[in-house]
Parts: sequence; C-alpha cells; structure tokens
Amino acid sequence: MHIVEILLVEAPHKPGYMAKVLGVIGAFGATVEGLNAVSRLDKETVWEVTLEYDDSLNIQQLFDEINQLPDTSITGKSDRVFNRHKQGKIKTVSAISIDSLEILRDLYTPGVARVCEAIQQSPNKIKEYTNIQNTVAIVTNGTAILGLGDIGPEAGLPVMEGKAAILAEMVELSGVPILLKEKDPLKIIEVVEAISSSFGAVLLEDIKAPECFTIEDELIERVNKPVFHDDQHGTAMVVLAALLSATKQANIDLKGRVFGQIGLGAAGMGICSLLLEYGVKEVVGCDLDQDAQKKLRGMGGQPMSLEEVMMTADVVVATTGVKGLIKPEMVRKGQIIMALSNPDPEIEPSLAIEHGASFATCGKVVNNMLAFPGLFKGTLAADVPTITHQMKIAVSETLSALASNGDLVPEALDKEMHAKVADAVYREAIKQRNEYL
Amino acid sequence: MHIVEILLVEAPHKPGYMAKVLGVIGAFGATVEGLNAVSRLDKETVWEVTLEYDDSLNIQQLFDEINQLPDTSITGKSDRVFNRHKQGKIKTVSAISIDSLEILRDLYTPGVARVCEAIQQSPNKIKEYTNIQNTVAIVTNGTAILGLGDIGPEAGLPVMEGKAAILAEMVELSGVPILLKEKDPLKIIEVVEAISSSFGAVLLEDIKAPECFTIEDELIERVNKPVFHDDQHGTAMVVLAALLSATKQANIDLKGRVFGQIGLGAAGMGICSLLLEYGVKEVVGCDLDQDAQKKLRGMGGQPMSLEEVMMTADVVVATTGVKGLIKPEMVRKGQIIMALSNPDPEIEPSLAIEHGASFATCGKVVNNMLAFPGLFKGTLAADVPTITHQMKIAVSETLSALASNGDLVPEALDKEMHAKVADAVYREAIKQRNEYL
Repeated sequence: MHIVEILLVEAPHKPGYMAKVLGVIGAFGATVEGLNAVSRLDKETVWEVTLEYDDSLNIQQLFDEINQLPDTSITGKSDRVFNRHKQGKIKTVSAISIDSLEILRDLYTPGVARVCEAIQQSPNKIKEYTNIQNTVAIVTNGTAILGLGDIGPEAGLPVMEGKAAILAEMVELSGVPILLKEKDPLKIIEVVEAISSSFGAVLLEDIKAPECFTIEDELIERVNKPVFHDDQHGTAMVVLAALLSATKQANIDLKGRVFGQIGLGAAGMGICSLLLEYGVKEVVGCDLDQDAQKKLRGMGGQPMSLEEVMMTADVVVATTGVKGLIKPEMVRKGQIIMALSNPDPEIEPSLAIEHGASFATCGKVVNNMLAFPGLFKGTLAADVPTITHQMKIAVSETLSALASNGDLVPEALDKEMHAKVADAVYREAIKQRNEYL
Repeated sequence: MHIVEILLVEAPHKPGYMAKVLGVIGAFGATVEGLNAVSRLDKETVWEVTLEYDDSLNIQQLFDEINQLPDTSITGKSDRVFNRHKQGKIKTVSAISIDSLEILRDLYTPGVARVCEAIQQSPNKIKEYTNIQNTVAIVTNGTAILGLGDIGPEAGLPVMEGKAAILAEMVELSGVPILLKEKDPLKIIEVVEAISSSFGAVLLEDIKAPECFTIEDELIERVNKPVFHDDQHGTAMVVLAALLSATKQANIDLKGRVFGQIGLGAAGMGICSLLLEYGVKEVVGCDLDQDAQKKLRGMGGQPMSLEEVMMTADVVVATTGVKGLIKPEMVRKGQIIMALSNPDPEIEPSLAIEHGASFATCGKVVNNMLAFPGLFKGTLAADVPTITHQMKIAVSETLSALASNGDLVPEALDKEMHAKVADAVYREAIKQRNEYL
C-alpha cells in the first residue's frame, strides 16, 4: 500500500543541504511529492517534505539517515490524509440561513404545518417540498471494505463518507451513511426496508459476496425505490465503458466476441450480467466457488476453468485479487486483457502485451466514481423506481463517448462529465417509462 | 391555524388605490405583513401583498372583493412558506472541495484505507476522523406530528428537516431524518438499535404517548449512546426554565411549592419527571387515562382530578390541547399558570390574571428549539453515553439565567445563547463523568 506522509525537516539555509535530504529519500526508493519552505529561522529553514512510499519500506531507517545528516533534523510529522479526514468529510447544512423570526416561523412552526398537511393530502409532494429526492442512503455492513475485507461497518465509515462527499461535490446529492453491525442477509433486508421511506434511493456498498446478491435482489423486490449495489454494477459500468473504448480503438465489435471473466465475486458477476444485457452472445467465466459457477450459468454464461477461459475468450477481465494469476504463457495473440486487481494486477499490462495481447490495462483506469454519481442523479431526477440495465448501459456508452483520444474513460473530477452521464440516464429512464405507460 | 400568503395585486399608479385594497383586507380581519412594489407598468403598479389570516376566514370572498375594486385585480399568488420549503431545507455537503486528484486520492482511495485501518485498530478514532460525533438521527414514526396528530412519517418529514436545519444553523450538528412506517414499539426499538452505529446520538421526535415512553426507555437501555425524546424532555426543559424565571420574578421558591400538571401525555410526563428531579417535593397531576395516572404515581407524583389540581397547586402547567379547559372560577389567588396548548390555551392569560393568578402565560413563550440544539451539542462534545437529569436541569438554569429582564426565556435565534447552553451541558456531563470514575 502506498503511504503519503509529510515531514518537517530543519536544515541550514545554505547550498546543498536539502539536496542531501532528497538524495537519502531517493536512495531509499521513496518519492518526493512536494517540497515547501514553511518558515525561515535565524540560520535554518524548516521544510515541509511530502513523501510517497510503499509500506514495505523501512521508513524509520530513512528517518534515522536524514537525522544523521550534518545540522539537519526531522522536527515533526504531519499526515495530510489524516488531516483531511479530521472531524469527517461531510456535514449537513441548512438550505436557508435561519436569521430572522420570519424565516424560522416559515421553516418550522407554525409554517411547516401547512407543508406537512400538503404532503399528507398529496404524498408525492414530499419530492417537491423536502430534500428526499436528493437523498441517498449509503448502506454497508462493512464485510468487504475496499481491499481491506471484513473490517466492520464503523471502520468502513470513512469510505461511506467519501462516497457521500463525492455525491455532494459532483452531482449535489445528499448521501447518508448507514452502518449495520449485522451479517444475516434477512435482517439487513428488514432494516433497510424499514428505513427506506427516509431516502430517495439506496446505495449498497462494500457488502461481501454472496450475501450481497440476495440482499440487493430482495430489496429491489421489496422497496419501491432505486436500490443498487455499487460493487457489482458500479465497477461493471466502468469496465463496459473501458471495453467499449478499447474495442473501438482495436476496431473490434465487442458483441460478436467471446468475453471471459476471471473471478465471479460481486464485481465479476456484475460485469457478466451487464455484458450479457449489453448483447455479448458468449460469456464464459471461472471461479473456484461452485455457487458462483451455478449463478453464472443461471444468467446465461458458461463456467469453465481459468485455462479454458484464457483459451476461449477474446476479451478478458480479471477481478480476483490474486497477483500474477494470469501466466504470460496463457495470453493468446490479439487478446484484450483488463487485469483489475489493486494494487497488484493478475498480469502486468506490459507483460501481457509482450506475450501477444493487442491491448492490456490494469485497475488504475477503472474508478467506480465515474459511474455512480451520474447514475443516481439521473435516476432520482427521472423519479423512476428501478435502475434498469439500459440505464447502466447508457452510463457506459456516455463514459466511453466522453473519453479523450486514447483514454478509455474520462477524468473522474469533471463535473460536466457527471452531468452528461446523469442526463443520459435521465433520458433513458424517461424513455423506458413512456414505453411502459 | 394562521396562514401566510403573498398576493400579486395590480392597481393604477394613482393616489388611494392601494389604500382601498388594504381597507378591504383589514375589514375582513386579515393582517398585512408586508407590502412591496414589485414592478411599475405603463400606468399600473404590481404590488406584492403579504397577508396573514386565520384559516377560518373566507379568503375567496376577500379576493373577490379586491377584484371588484375599480381598475384593481389580483394577478397571481405566491406562497412564501412553500417557496422556502422547495427541494427541502437541508443538504449534505463535502467538508472539503474535491477539486484535485491529490485531494480525491486522500479522501477516497487509496488514502482512505489508512484511516479505515486506524479506526479498525482503535475504534474510538471514529470520533476523530469521521463526522459521526456531530451526527444526530432524527427518528419519527409520524404518530404525533406537531398539533396535527398521526399523519405518518412522510408527511412529518418537513418537521424533521426543520429540526435538522436548526441543528445545522444553531450548533453546526448534522441531523439525519429517519422515517419509520411502523407503530409497534418493539419493531421501532429494533430498527433504531440496528442503525444506531451510524450516529453520535438519537433524537426521537413526534412519537405519540404512551408508546414513546417504552421506546425511549428501552433504547436508552440498549444503545450505548445518547437517546432523547424531545416531546417529553425538550418541552420540559423550557417549561422549567420559564418557571424558574417566573418564580424568581414572583420571589417564590419553586422547590417548596406544590406543582400541578394538567395533562399527562409525553410533554406532561416529561415536565413532572424533570420537576421531581429538580427537587420539587410535591407534584400533583391529572389525566383521564388511568395508565398515565399510574405512571405519575410510579415516579413519585400524586394523581388527582382537574379540580383538585387547581385547588392544590401553587404552580400549574397545562398541556392538554383542550381550549378553555381551565375555568376562570378554578383559578386561585396567587397561582402561577402556564396554559401551553397551541393555538388556543387552556385559559387565556389575561382571564387567569383577572381571576387572581399572580402570573399567567400561554404556549407562545415555550419554544423547544431553545433547548435541544445546545443539549445535543454539549452532550456530543463531552462524549458521554447518557443525557442525565442534571444535564437537562443545567439547560433550564442556563436558559433562565440568559433571559432578559422581564422575559421568561432568551431569544431562540441567538447562537451565542445556544453555545452557552452547550457549554453548561458539557461542563455538567464532564463533572458527572469525573464523579463516576
């Protein structure tokens, strides 16, 4: 894992001293990300040195070597990541400043009573006169937090707040982290159903397979609002976008090729499902888990061994978490390979290319933050109760279309991009609703 | 109920025309709250006329009469209250603007993983590196919304958002409305317990008696975080504050007098409980409900009839919702009477004074918004799991001490006041914690 750390280093204000510090850092294999003079003392300068290093590095030894440089010492440390998480990443604010009794009496008693009565008489007015249609529950039980696994919902809260902060910044939705200390799928379903009136939609997050499948399926059945498990479909939408871009660049028609999925967890299943819905005729996949194989067969795919997948598929995606799982000799000439496990892919892209792949990439390009903000914004704006495959495919096609020349997907921080994704989802949702009516 | 409405009135730009409009309004018994010239046409002016009127008024007839005035007409309507509720009163925002990849990588992957691991190792760090210790669930099942009764949780959402907006504006806490379509106390308890890891504290709101008592008691037992039903204790704290001010003004010692509570619902029970804890020796009360009488006896009070309460008590508080319940001839010389039902009190203060009361007031002075923001701010800052009677009494004493000369309680919108209440609660909580250790 990469660690970013900020050191405060005091050194004489003379030529060559900081060069030595940077020299030690470089010799240890750490990268300098930033260097700022913070203050000038009598004869010394205090520098803020931002380091990025792998957690395998013996950082204490690096610090000791810096302290042994002549007249140079580390006087303190700062941690930018932790600093930026202090007191959390989200907060609730009032939409109007409450600074007069008139405003208070309009927003609260007595004025609010009329708004309540209006909603009681016409329940749909809740979407006009409250924030509910901009509110997304972000629900986790903490069983599959990032690459960290089952660390519990409370340790996972920083991720949920991160998602909420992204929703707020990119598409102005209000995310509400809901932490459930519970592993029984039925109980999770009951609790989420019980609180579902509070939100416009439900984003399930970092819940492990196979429980995540039951939980999502059953909640979609029971709750008449959009329910969506990001680990399954969020990754899938971005993978499909990247595949659309890659196959377009390679002048290949994705639908006519054999698609192979290595690893049938939450993400792998979501990818197979979306590709089948997109129109790929032949989907093959492998996983050691027999239930996963059965599930793949159930949705129209063909389970086989890893070797068979590599033999059969023209386009391969791997989401196993197993470093180096794909041996170079398995790669066939002309294959498109996306080895998505972070930080260590199933095969290094350069190695895959070397062994004949026409295109290869790793997980760094697949950021699920590209998909979920616009998907939720568009779905809530359209006020439809379900997120359909067509809406997800609209996300992928929009992302692929917005990628700059040579890139597979667009920049994640581009708000206009998120607005365009939302718009595509909105239009698809309205179209489907009209067809249904 | 009072209605505020904004009319757009077009009238000739000549002397006397608007006087006629205001004359009609006044003759109907409606009050003009504001008058603005919005635009000047060729010969006419368009005025925005803000009206306040009772819903018993035949407003259509008033409109017709204005339209019958020479060259004058109502061209449109606007509703300030509804305008101010459009798209809701709260929203979630990111604490940091996410406008660079560096910030994104610190707040989300990969940086966030280290913060998750830190919390996994030291669970208490969740309070330092997330917003949880500033987050309050505002839970309702909608069975006792304001004076409107059982209108359901969704129609009650504007009130919950109002509370959240007040928390945000007054003390910078993040309120999260949680709506439960459920009346079974046990199920409510289970759901709130299941989601309680998500918040720093739980504010129960507008849940009807007697279920509210079981729900609060049981949740306090099960959840190791502050749980508080505002309808019981919020009103009680403000009533105690007002009584402290009133008895000080009348040079009476509240503790030595007989206190009488008329109406033993959520608010009435909360008031009796707090006054007993405050040290009032003799508390009497009346309610038609036998369970309520039993509950009062259980906490150390004496149930009796309405007539007996009025005969016995020196200080009387009424929270029945029954207009004119206290007959003038029941009032005894020197009594202090707070008839709190809105909009129509159990006895008009002027009538009570006329019949011998030394002090009388109605519900307009008792705004529970005075208490709950500071109470939660101080409790969360002190990081204690329980809101004790002493902490509630600290709120009342602070509110009374901050009331200006002649007033019973301070201004509700004074942020410095809320900060002082929070500080008093914090200090009391720390004191108790230290005594306990």
